[in-house]
Amino acid sequence: MNRYGLPDEIFIRDKVPMTKSEIRALTLIKLDLNKDDIVWDVGAGTGSISIEAALNVPAGRVLAIEKNIEAVELIKANKEKFKCQNLEVVHGVAPDIFPELTKPTKAIIGGSTGNLQEIIHYLWYKTSVQNLVINAITLNTTYLALEVLNSLQGQIDAIQIALNKIKMVNGYQMLQSQNPVFIISATKQEE
Amino acid sequence: MNRYGLPDEIFIRDKVPMTKSEIRALTLIKLDLNKDDIVWDVGAGTGSISIEAALNVPAGRVLAIEKNIEAVELIKANKEKFKCQNLEVVHGVAPDIFPELTKPTKAIIGGSTGNLQEIIHYLWYKTSVQNLVINAITLNTTYLALEVLNSLQGQIDAIQIALNKIKMVNGYQMLQSQNPVFIISATKQEE
Amino acid sequence: MNRYGLPDEIFIRDKVPMTKSEIRALTLIKLDLNKDDIVWDVGAGTGSISIEAALNVPAGRVLAIEKNIEAVELIKANKEKFKCQNLEVVHGVAPDIFPELTKPTKAIIGGSTGNLQEIIHYLWYKTSVQNLVINAITLNTTYLALEVLNSLQGQIDAIQIALNKIKMVNGYQMLQSQNPVFIISATKQEE
Amino acid sequence: MNRYGLPDEIFIRDKVPMTKSEIRALTLIKLDLNKDDIVWDVGAGTGSISIEAALNVPAGRVLAIEKNIEAVELIKANKEKFKCQNLEVVHGVAPDIFPELTKPTKAIIGGSTGNLQEIIHYLWYKTSVQNLVINAITLNTTYLALEVLNSLQGQIDAIQIALNKIKMVNGYQMLQSQNPVFIISATKQEE
Repeated sequence: MNRYGLPDEIFIRDKVPMTKSEIRALTLIKLDLNKDDIVWDVGAGTGSISIEAALNVPAGRVLAIEKNIEAVELIKANKEKFKCQNLEVVHGVAPDIFPELTKPTKAIIGGSTGNLQEIIHYLWYKTSVQNLVINAITLNTTYLALEVLNSLQGQIDAIQIALNKIKMVNGYQMLQSQNPVFIISATKQEE
Repeated sequence: MNRYGLPDEIFIRDKVPMTKSEIRALTLIKLDLNKDDIVWDVGAGTGSISIEAALNVPAGRVLAIEKNIEAVELIKANKEKFKCQNLEVVHGVAPDIFPELTKPTKAIIGGSTGNLQEIIHYLWYKTSVQNLVINAITLNTTYLALEVLNSLQGQIDAIQIALNKIKMVNGYQMLQSQNPVFIISATKQEE
Repeated sequence: MNRYGLPDEIFIRDKVPMTKSEIRALTLIKLDLNKDDIVWDVGAGTGSISIEAALNVPAGRVLAIEKNIEAVELIKANKEKFKCQNLEVVHGVAPDIFPELTKPTKAIIGGSTGNLQEIIHYLWYKTSVQNLVINAITLNTTYLALEVLNSLQGQIDAIQIALNKIKMVNGYQMLQSQNPVFIISATKQEE
Repeated sequence: MNRYGLPDEIFIRDKVPMTKSEIRALTLIKLDLNKDDIVWDVGAGTGSISIEAALNVPAGRVLAIEKNIEAVELIKANKEKFKCQNLEVVHGVAPDIFPELTKPTKAIIGGSTGNLQEIIHYLWYKTSVQNLVINAITLNTTYLALEVLNSLQGQIDAIQIALNKIKMVNGYQMLQSQNPVFIISATKQEE
């Protein structure tokens, strides 16, 4: 049973910034997972998206790829907490590490450290990935992702989401904004 | 397997306004469905949320409650298209029709025609509903829903979502706004 | 010459929350000031809106009405800093203090402490105010303001503004959200 | 007296898309006009921003530069309607036409037809422009404007604004979104 968008508090996160619950849910919705998918989560950060993906591909596997060693430890801690046997934590830089890994059927890019185009091209041309979902918080990444994806002849879906939390404060309904996020996804066209 | 947030185009909708894909997905995420839930979709409109709920409670049932006869026909057409045996279409006004129906474990309120408080109170006090999710496009409904839910001692989660679609137009990445939506949910506290 | 939307940093503000530059500018735009207007700023807070109003009604006057004594001191400090001779700082509770004051031709309501309806009614019926602009950060105030104003037969204009600042961080264009604000204005119809 | 953000309806606009009232107001606020400024409005469209600028520089001048002949006619019609003697309508392509024109002290770029970098560079290096304000509705223009301006050592201010109109519909307070707009401004640093 699907459990996308788990509460933020249940993840171990330390000081690494974490994708918020609703954005995580929409990212995974866009990924359109099947039970047996092999998912790459490139720039996995806290691993919260990897965890939720892993919980939803019981017959598949998730590879959380992350270059930062503190983040790698955090993902491992979350893996243990959520008992995700099908989650593999990979310490390495994308796309350099890619040739060593089991090829994916779905991929998320949450961080790309200046290699976004190379990462997308590798995924698109050298794997049989069906869907690619990019989470971006900068205009640079969004702009570049759209330019690159647009040249690939896939089907693109791109949104910007601004979300306000409404909190009760002394009986008043106050709106608290979250920073907006871009979710860009591309699907290979059936031939 | 979860298929929340199906493409808008695959629903039959005629001229009845329809909840957009991402909002539908987040609404169902907030509903936190179990396989065997009995779901009421009050003010079901086109039935797009009912359909997605039904597809995700294979061992449960969804009751799409709708007062407008054209909308009822539309839901029936969608039920047929998506082959949802576990979706029951109920023509009637909420909350008057409620006593005749199988009690729900989860409920969505998409329309309330001036009876929002009565609908919430019935669901909260006269059924064993665990989660309640309200979709609102007006400040009136949002304000009232929060006031009523706040008095019920449940756990409230409320968000406003503004979503821009990014479309490629002559090579330019243009943002097209969608009207914002409020999603208000309440969960009964475990005693 | 108009100087709406002065930089936030030039105001003395201590810990009192302050309306942001762009919102302040739009609030004053909606107020549609004339050189000789008498402006009431009800719930003036830091006085930043009062100051900008005062600078733009050289032949008129601004009354900054505020019940909180720390805020009153802050407004006085800002008055001194900006050398606004035509700004009068009034320590008192609205609408109780209203009968003692020179009647306004324009009014802003930034805070109302539970008396919003009484404040609006006083302004509308017992003064010759032409425009009324309400800044709100809660759904309660927005909802109530619209309900009250809607009954007054004035011409209403209401907007919700969500503003993201774009900051360069290590060469990346990052979006940082501000909490959304509602600006509701009403204009008396010419008879 | 300032009259930024005039009602949209009072402009003649035909089918040319027009900057909305609040965005027009904020654009001019960011431009920080003095009474005697020479303003270039590059890609002036309907001319609504040119008109409001002209009304606010009584001792200065506005040059509305536009390549599209229908838009040029529209600006001329608006010039006549608003009796702006100090508004000059220039039919030509930017930046090719620039050397023929009186140098500006302030500039707005509302349209750039693929020449954004050249336009900015001309304004920054070959005129004594103090402020530059760019209105953008695409990510491409926003991204490029920020990249170019960032290299110029000016002081940059950039915002994205999402604005919802709240309309009363059958007693309900409904939110209607407008497409978001980016306003990017750069100010030359005093040396």
